[in-house]
Amino acid sequence: MSANSFGHIFKFHSFGESHGAGMGAVIEGCPSGVPFSLEDVRRELDRRRPGRWPWSSSRKEPDEPEILSGVFEGKTLGTPIGILVRNKDARPQDYKAIKEKPRAGHADDLWREKFRHWDHRGGGRASGRETLSRVLAGSVARSLLKELCPAFRVMAFVRQIGNVFLEDGDLKTAEELFQKNILSETFSACFPHKEKSEQVVKSLLKAKQEGNSLGSLIELWIEGLPKGLGQPVFHKFKSDLVQGLMSLGASSGVEIGKGFSSAKEEGLTFHKSSENYGGLRGGLTTSERIVMRVAFKPPSTLGKMAKEGRHDPCIGPRAVPVVEAMACIVSVDHLLWSRLDRLKPGI
Amino acid sequence: MSANSFGHIFKFHSFGESHGAGMGAVIEGCPSGVPFSLEDVRRELDRRRPGRWPWSSSRKEPDEPEILSGVFEGKTLGTPIGILVRNKDARPQDYKAIKEKPRAGHADDLWREKFRHWDHRGGGRASGRETLSRVLAGSVARSLLKELCPAFRVMAFVRQIGNVFLEDGDLKTAEELFQKNILSETFSACFPHKEKSEQVVKSLLKAKQEGNSLGSLIELWIEGLPKGLGQPVFHKFKSDLVQGLMSLGASSGVEIGKGFSSAKEEGLTFHKSSENYGGLRGGLTTSERIVMRVAFKPPSTLGKMAKEGRHDPCIGPRAVPVVEAMACIVSVDHLLWSRLDRLKPGI
Amino acid sequence: MSANSFGHIFKFHSFGESHGAGMGAVIEGCPSGVPFSLEDVRRELDRRRPGRWPWSSSRKEPDEPEILSGVFEGKTLGTPIGILVRNKDARPQDYKAIKEKPRAGHADDLWREKFRHWDHRGGGRASGRETLSRVLAGSVARSLLKELCPAFRVMAFVRQIGNVFLEDGDLKTAEELFQKNILSETFSACFPHKEKSEQVVKSLLKAKQEGNSLGSLIELWIEGLPKGLGQPVFHKFKSDLVQGLMSLGASSGVEIGKGFSSAKEEGLTFHKSSENYGGLRGGLTTSERIVMRVAFKPPSTLGKMAKEGRHDPCIGPRAVPVVEAMACIVSVDHLLWSRLDRLKPGI
Amino acid sequence: MSANSFGHIFKFHSFGESHGAGMGAVIEGCPSGVPFSLEDVRRELDRRRPGRWPWSSSRKEPDEPEILSGVFEGKTLGTPIGILVRNKDARPQDYKAIKEKPRAGHADDLWREKFRHWDHRGGGRASGRETLSRVLAGSVARSLLKELCPAFRVMAFVRQIGNVFLEDGDLKTAEELFQKNILSETFSACFPHKEKSEQVVKSLLKAKQEGNSLGSLIELWIEGLPKGLGQPVFHKFKSDLVQGLMSLGASSGVEIGKGFSSAKEEGLTFHKSSENYGGLRGGLTTSERIVMRVAFKPPSTLGKMAKEGRHDPCIGPRAVPVVEAMACIVSVDHLLWSRLDRLKPGI
Repeated sequence: MSANSFGHIFKFHSFGESHGAGMGAVIEGCPSGVPFSLEDVRRELDRRRPGRWPWSSSRKEPDEPEILSGVFEGKTLGTPIGILVRNKDARPQDYKAIKEKPRAGHADDLWREKFRHWDHRGGGRASGRETLSRVLAGSVARSLLKELCPAFRVMAFVRQIGNVFLEDGDLKTAEELFQKNILSETFSACFPHKEKSEQVVKSLLKAKQEGNSLGSLIELWIEGLPKGLGQPVFHKFKSDLVQGLMSLGASSGVEIGKGFSSAKEEGLTFHKSSENYGGLRGGLTTSERIVMRVAFKPPSTLGKMAKEGRHDPCIGPRAVPVVEAMACIVSVDHLLWSRLDRLKPGI
Repeated sequence: MSANSFGHIFKFHSFGESHGAGMGAVIEGCPSGVPFSLEDVRRELDRRRPGRWPWSSSRKEPDEPEILSGVFEGKTLGTPIGILVRNKDARPQDYKAIKEKPRAGHADDLWREKFRHWDHRGGGRASGRETLSRVLAGSVARSLLKELCPAFRVMAFVRQIGNVFLEDGDLKTAEELFQKNILSETFSACFPHKEKSEQVVKSLLKAKQEGNSLGSLIELWIEGLPKGLGQPVFHKFKSDLVQGLMSLGASSGVEIGKGFSSAKEEGLTFHKSSENYGGLRGGLTTSERIVMRVAFKPPSTLGKMAKEGRHDPCIGPRAVPVVEAMACIVSVDHLLWSRLDRLKPGI
Repeated sequence: MSANSFGHIFKFHSFGESHGAGMGAVIEGCPSGVPFSLEDVRRELDRRRPGRWPWSSSRKEPDEPEILSGVFEGKTLGTPIGILVRNKDARPQDYKAIKEKPRAGHADDLWREKFRHWDHRGGGRASGRETLSRVLAGSVARSLLKELCPAFRVMAFVRQIGNVFLEDGDLKTAEELFQKNILSETFSACFPHKEKSEQVVKSLLKAKQEGNSLGSLIELWIEGLPKGLGQPVFHKFKSDLVQGLMSLGASSGVEIGKGFSSAKEEGLTFHKSSENYGGLRGGLTTSERIVMRVAFKPPSTLGKMAKEGRHDPCIGPRAVPVVEAMACIVSVDHLLWSRLDRLKPGI
Repeated sequence: MSANSFGHIFKFHSFGESHGAGMGAVIEGCPSGVPFSLEDVRRELDRRRPGRWPWSSSRKEPDEPEILSGVFEGKTLGTPIGILVRNKDARPQDYKAIKEKPRAGHADDLWREKFRHWDHRGGGRASGRETLSRVLAGSVARSLLKELCPAFRVMAFVRQIGNVFLEDGDLKTAEELFQKNILSETFSACFPHKEKSEQVVKSLLKAKQEGNSLGSLIELWIEGLPKGLGQPVFHKFKSDLVQGLMSLGASSGVEIGKGFSSAKEEGLTFHKSSENYGGLRGGLTTSERIVMRVAFKPPSTLGKMAKEGRHDPCIGPRAVPVVEAMACIVSVDHLLWSRLDRLKPGI
């Protein structure tokens, strides 16, 4: 029972408050001998860093990681990997008002009622900054995936922000990026479509100026995993990944393959194309592309506070590397778990 | 690490194959002193039993439960509660063909590849009959909820089957049932709307005759839980309940409150009404009504096999008591967990 | 968090009260494809059955197991293995007195205070009959060990009962039995020494007649495990096995290799012989013979109640198959876990 | 499944290598609102610090802790508490020889074989320095115990080093210290007996000079816990505490109350005095004093290497605060767990 741990075999323990000393993760269950270095962490952290876009939070965080344990001479030791990122641009004083008056739409009041004593500074542990720890663990997962499953490929991108939406016909660019293993960050707001990404940027800037915010939708693609990953009946690949994604703040829905629209389908049509399954059958991987979508509510920081700068008017773009991190963690966890499925020669 | 266990404090271990000796659950973490009897189990099992509707599976299962342990003189002992339901109408011979030829759309081939040695009879453990164990655990959870949280109320109902959908304006009857604590089973196919439920029954009978199947959507309402249930950051009420629901076979999506449609919203509008949150903020309960929806694909048993009788042409109606069971389990688990949140007089 | 579950990867959930419907176990984490049958369970249960010796409990239990799930056509499925043994010779009425007046030395009063509502009949779940579930899980572990580690060999035997003790010089017979893989049950009271076992039987009969009881010491030998099993720092082979043994009722001490006598040793002498380590260094297996000893208090049922028959005057002999079961479970759990230690070709 | 996590509700995750960046712990499950500060950590760390005695390791470690998260304005937040202690006097170069030639008696060779890639510097994670993390978690446990159970009292002391042993008649001073809540460190080598502690110091200095080492025995007393702590059947207070103690490096045995000598006892005598139970019956606390003993082998660093200084010739004295830390952690974990035992008014 650990509220702040995620995973079964490959597992991480997350800690840190937004305006405390720092954010960190202790990663367990990574086998020894995996090449891993600070560079692998930095690369992922940079993707998540605030202040990369004109419309995003102006918080200035270098997000420089330190590996505290578990890595020696460039390889993992099989012992817990501790990684710490200090909070540099913490400005607790900016948040004094919250102490007395919880912000509407946030969970400030709920945390206060739940724990009585709580850290009001920027949401404390309820801040989106918590997702940094997931990126730390995700960077280890990625390095391990390279060794265990070289064919593995993951890409998340933003498919919708407010009323700008990528139709199925708009996914050519996304497809190209995925094939070439290029990050969706190549496009503004991780929106892999030339014209529409420009529209999106406009909406975001406008929202920021007006103290408004926008909902968003992320699509996630995974390829290269072998058949049969996932553990029935409660830790199917499907249910574990969904849990990981729905533990993200502001997420309001998740679907696989045809998802919600499958509710209106007839079986004789639906089962003609395996694409509708989104790469999962019986909750297990089929070796086809996994396709999931996560919806995010518009952020609840609005009005004067939103204009002042240290907030994002939209979750989607900044959640992209976090969604990928969760996908890597679940994938590698289940890859390891699947080694125990059956008697094998040599086992 | 237990693929077949669910929950943290209130936890259950599920076992059983569809055509083996029986299905069962061992429930742990229920405090001692909770009134509980066979009647409490039977009531829930009856709701899930196959063959209750003309269009549903013709498998004849009395589903008579036996309490093996953990209950004495009508009350729980605080020890593991073992409950067993024997499979009576198992007809393994009906499934010989599957051994050689896995059924399309099912996970037969994936299980075979994963485990090599598998029970092909009616899906074995991959069968929908697995959900029986959840109902067993759910019946204990319900009894405990009565003691811990008398205000607790839960109702799941079918909101969509194929192209018949309940609009927001169609929910008056559902609302009445919920207020009066009446089961949605009062209506055919758990579709709480007089005219539309008749339409739905026609579609289902037609699908059955044609060897076709239909997708569906369940809506879940929970009321009466106190504020602040859920454990950040990975075991929010939201993420745990979603995981429980997405571990159900054929589920293809889940959403909370405004869900997917929140992706297109602007914050200044969205945050005007707390109803949009679906009773959860920061993933924690707000004490308002929790509203979730789960989508199910059309079942993959089609054609000749579907006509023969021992299959359902639609998941939704039979999943209703199972969805409620999962809701009860997650609710009671988090109620217990919340007792440990903070220092309290007397703790 | 499961009070009644043991193990990490190979894990079992135990349930049952002494005078309830039956005792059982749900075993998880056993890979698919392992040959396993009722015979494998029966063989172990027979060794533990009450009433096999003139001085032991007169409770007549056929202890006939039923496999409820997880096994198909003679092999495990990789799904949870449910096994049930019904209580036949339950005589709840014999224990009415306890309800009012907890037995001294037993934990009756503590259970009553802890749970308020408790099953007083023969100790309920606090009864030694609880160990039956361990033997069920142990029988699966044994079958899996045959496949994973054919060189594996385990033997427990009684080394001391009251004042009869096997000196180091008395272990020739034990050594022979171990080499030939013969059970220590070949000797009365599992005391593998011709003359001394006769002495022991006399003491036991005398104790029984007098309403007295005797302490005992079990020695456990394990061979054939590879080097390096165990997971630092909290789940060393040493600490997990010790936990398993000290969860047995009436156990009062456990030691490894030279054990307590190592406290008075000097390093320069002690470290000359690796035998002193008892097959474990740094808590990990060295591939040498593992040697542990567990002490048991004299049972607390005394006087009139002890004479009447349904109790054992000594724990040791009946605990032998249980100690072996726990050794098998810990061994196989750590064998599986060690598969995840490092990157390997093919993983 | 976490090799480096300990506890159920109150739980900690340990990380760090002896000559890496530092040692740390992430503590979960501590309720919010518990007064806790750096001082509480420092006090305990100081007791464990190397170099406090003339005969102990000359490694100079200030062991200055930093609280990274989970504490705000002097009280716990109910979120994970991260604490870090940097390694300052790491001298990796001193250990180059080990890389090629594992030290006899240590687990160097086993770790190397297990993980292939390992940190040879001073044992890496297999070093006794790992116990620092336990002291970190123990300091939080202590602070929580003060609030939950003001009557709680714990004292560990060294009862034997080599051939100097405290007889039952020698325990008056220990008793006084315990009554007055004074640390056993008041006496050299935590040996609470004026004359005998002088003898002990002589033996230790002699051993150090000669490159020899000595075995030892620690006794642990706990008082003030309520009746009925511990969770049958696998997480009895007894088995959890024993597991914690036997996860310590070099521990070779543990016993409770009369322990091993109970093996030779007759029940009619043994059960006359409840003192023989060591404060535990049925594995649960009785509210009487808990008495346990842990034996430690003589350390395996011998000869030239032992003389050079950065090693202890005896485990016992330095393990005293660690044993107390484990006792605090297990006590508080079970105190919290017991809140869930039964239905209570208000729960």
